[in-house]
Amino acid sequence: MALIVQKFGGSSVRDAERINNVADIVTSTYREGNDVVVVVSAQGDTTDDFIAKAAEINEKPSKREMDMLLSAGEQISASLLAMAIERMGYPVVSLLGWQAGFDTTSDYGNARIKKVDASRIKKEIDKRRIVVITGFQGVNRYGDMTTLGRGGSDTSAVAIAATMHADLCQIYTDVDGVYTADPRKIPGAIKLDYISYDEMLELATLGAQVLHNRSVEMAKKYNIELEVLSSLTRRRGTIVREENNVEEMLISGVAKDDNIARISIIGVPDKPGLAFKIFSKLSSKGINVDIILQSIGRNGTKDISFTVAKNKMEDAMNLLNSYAELLGASGIVSDDKVTKVSIVGAGMESHPGVAAEMFEALFTRNVNIQMISTSEIKISVLINKADGERAVEAIHEKFFENA
Amino acid sequence: MALIVQKFGGSSVRDAERINNVADIVTSTYREGNDVVVVVSAQGDTTDDFIAKAAEINEKPSKREMDMLLSAGEQISASLLAMAIERMGYPVVSLLGWQAGFDTTSDYGNARIKKVDASRIKKEIDKRRIVVITGFQGVNRYGDMTTLGRGGSDTSAVAIAATMHADLCQIYTDVDGVYTADPRKIPGAIKLDYISYDEMLELATLGAQVLHNRSVEMAKKYNIELEVLSSLTRRRGTIVREENNVEEMLISGVAKDDNIARISIIGVPDKPGLAFKIFSKLSSKGINVDIILQSIGRNGTKDISFTVAKNKMEDAMNLLNSYAELLGASGIVSDDKVTKVSIVGAGMESHPGVAAEMFEALFTRNVNIQMISTSEIKISVLINKADGERAVEAIHEKFFENA
Repeated sequence: MALIVQKFGGSSVRDAERINNVADIVTSTYREGNDVVVVVSAQGDTTDDFIAKAAEINEKPSKREMDMLLSAGEQISASLLAMAIERMGYPVVSLLGWQAGFDTTSDYGNARIKKVDASRIKKEIDKRRIVVITGFQGVNRYGDMTTLGRGGSDTSAVAIAATMHADLCQIYTDVDGVYTADPRKIPGAIKLDYISYDEMLELATLGAQVLHNRSVEMAKKYNIELEVLSSLTRRRGTIVREENNVEEMLISGVAKDDNIARISIIGVPDKPGLAFKIFSKLSSKGINVDIILQSIGRNGTKDISFTVAKNKMEDAMNLLNSYAELLGASGIVSDDKVTKVSIVGAGMESHPGVAAEMFEALFTRNVNIQMISTSEIKISVLINKADGERAVEAIHEKFFENA
Repeated sequence: MALIVQKFGGSSVRDAERINNVADIVTSTYREGNDVVVVVSAQGDTTDDFIAKAAEINEKPSKREMDMLLSAGEQISASLLAMAIERMGYPVVSLLGWQAGFDTTSDYGNARIKKVDASRIKKEIDKRRIVVITGFQGVNRYGDMTTLGRGGSDTSAVAIAATMHADLCQIYTDVDGVYTADPRKIPGAIKLDYISYDEMLELATLGAQVLHNRSVEMAKKYNIELEVLSSLTRRRGTIVREENNVEEMLISGVAKDDNIARISIIGVPDKPGLAFKIFSKLSSKGINVDIILQSIGRNGTKDISFTVAKNKMEDAMNLLNSYAELLGASGIVSDDKVTKVSIVGAGMESHPGVAAEMFEALFTRNVNIQMISTSEIKISVLINKADGERAVEAIHEKFFENA
C-alpha cells in the first residue's frame, strides 16, 4: 500500500466524460489499496473564459481580484470530480487550496508555496477517503486567495507529494510521456522510460512543455519520483527521478524552442565593462538573456549578440536603442526568424564527441549555425527558423534512428 | 456618514453591463461619504448551470460537494464586481463567505448562520475600502463550504447589517419595492413607502416573493431597517421597519399563492385525538400544514381539510391513504386546482370590519370561498384556482382603488 499523488490537467477534466475517465483512474488506484491524493486544474477553457469575462469589465484588474476569480475554476473541477467519484461509490472529499493547507507568498498571480500544512489532508486520508485538491492555488498571510502562475498545478502536486512523503507523483497530461523529440513532428520519436531531473529540467526549459520547471525543481529537491503519463491511453509513462542509470542512452531528447529572438549590438567599443552594463540594464527590466555570443575585437570594436524570449524583443530593443548609441555602438539589429534547437543528455558529460556529432548532422543537411551554447548536459544552437524542423529531424536521426 | 449594506441579486449582476451598473450604485453611495458593504449573489443562471453540470455527472451528489461547487458562483460575481469598482477608481476588496467570517451550521445546502465574525470586514472598512462579500455562503466548524439555501443572500446581507450595526440594509432586486398587489397582474397596484416587518413576513409567506422570510425575521430581531428597491430604476424603494406608523393604510397588500393544494379526509370518527395524530404524522415527515378546517361532527363523523404546499401533496396523500383507513375514515380526496388569496395589514387589528369587506368583494364577483384562515394581521381564503386573478382584482379594487 502506497501513497500516490495524481495530478490531472485541464484537458483531462474538460467535460463530464473526461471527468468520469479521471474518476475511473483514481478509483482503480484506490482499489489497489493505495491512498490517493488527486490534484486538479480548472476545466478546459475555464481560465481563459474567466480572463475574457474580466477583460470585458476591467482591462487591468488588480492581481488580487484576478486570483479571486481564477481560483473559482479549480473549485468547480474539484467538486465535479468528487461527485463523479461519489457516484462510483467511493469515499471522497474535495478541498480548496486553503483547506488543504497551501500557504503561499502574496505575489498574486505568481505566488510561491511557502509551506503545506497537510493536517487536514492526513485526517481525510486516515478516514480512507480519496482527497481531491484544487491545484494552482493557495492562501497568503492575509487569508487571501492566491494563484501559483504557470505550471502551478504540477507544483501543487509535487508539493503535496513532498510534504506527505508520497511514493509516487503521477502527472497526467495529454501526452503519454517524455519523448526523444516532439512526436507530432518526428515520427521516429521514442518514448523514454526514465529521465533524470536535470535532463527533464533542460528539456522543460527548452520548450518540450511536458512538465513545468518549477515542479521538476521541487521534485528534485525533495527526491519525489514523478511519472508523466496520459489520462487517455492508460499506458506506463516516463519516470523522472534522480539518476537515469537504467538506460545507457547518450542523449535523452531533442527540443526546439521557437519563442526566441536574437539581438545584435554592432560595433561596440572594445572596452571592459560594456557587456556587463548592457546585460544588467536588461536584467533590471526583467528581461532574461539566454545565449550570448561576443565576437573577437577588431579595429577596436566588437559585436555582442544574445537571445531573449520573443515577447521581450521589443522591450529589449526599446531599452537598448538609445543606450547602445550612448555606449558608442554603431548599430543594433534584431531577428525573430530564429529558433533554438537543443540536445539534452546526462550521458554527454562523459562523451566529448556529442557536439561534433550534432554539428555534423546539421552540416549534412546544410543548416547554418548562428550561435552555440553548451552546458554539462545540453548543447543548443541558434539557427534560421526555416531550418528548424529539418534540423530536429537530422539530429534525431543521427542519435536515435541510426543507432 | 453612515454604514450601508447593499445586496444585489443574480439578475442585477448577470452580465458586464449590469455589473457596471451595480458598481455605479455602490460607488455613488460611497462618494456620498458612506461606508459600503456589498453582498452579491451568483450571476444570472450560474447556479442553474452548475446544478446541470453536476447532474450530468452524478444525479444525487452529496450536499457537501454541491455546496463546494455552488459557492464558486458568488466568488465569480464578487471578484468581477470588485474589478468594475476598481476600474472606476475606488478602493475595494472582495471577500468570500469564510473570509468575511460567516460561521454556519453544517446543514449543507440549507445552513444557518451561527455568527458573523466581522473583524476582517471592519479592518477593510477602516481602510476606507468598499467591501464586496459573496452572499449565500459560509464555512462550518470543519472548515468546509456551506450554502444558506433559499433567500440566502438576503440573509447574508441582513446578518452583516446586524453584526456591524449598519444604518440601512438595501436589498436590490428586479422590482422597485413592495406593492399592494403583484404589479404585473394588477395595473392599479400601489408601491408602498413603508411596511412593517410583520406585514412583510406575512406577504413573503404568502408568495409575494420580494424578500425571503429568513431575512425579514432576522431584520426584525435585530431591528435592521431594510429597503427593497430596484438596481435599474434608481428610485426610492419600500422601507421595511418595525412600525408602519407613517401611513394610515388599513391593509398593506393582497397576495396570491398558487403553490398550494387541499386535502380532505372524509368521515373521520368523531373521537378526540385523531386530528392530532394526523397532523403529527405529517409533521414527522416534514410536511407543513397551512390552513386547517374541521367540520362540525355529524352522525358521529367529521371531515378534516387542510392545505399543504403543492409539491408535498403526493407525499401527503401516500402517507395518509392507508393511515386514514386505519383511523376509520371513509375516504380521502385532494385538489391542487386551488389558490390562496390573502390580505395583510397591521391596521386590521383595530378594524374588525376588514374580513367582511374582503368577503363582500369576493361575493360581488361570485367567488366561492372554500376555507378561511385569519391571524392578527392577515386574512387568507382558499378558492378555486380559476377564480384567483379575479379575486385579487376585486379585493385590490375594494381596498385601494375605491379609496
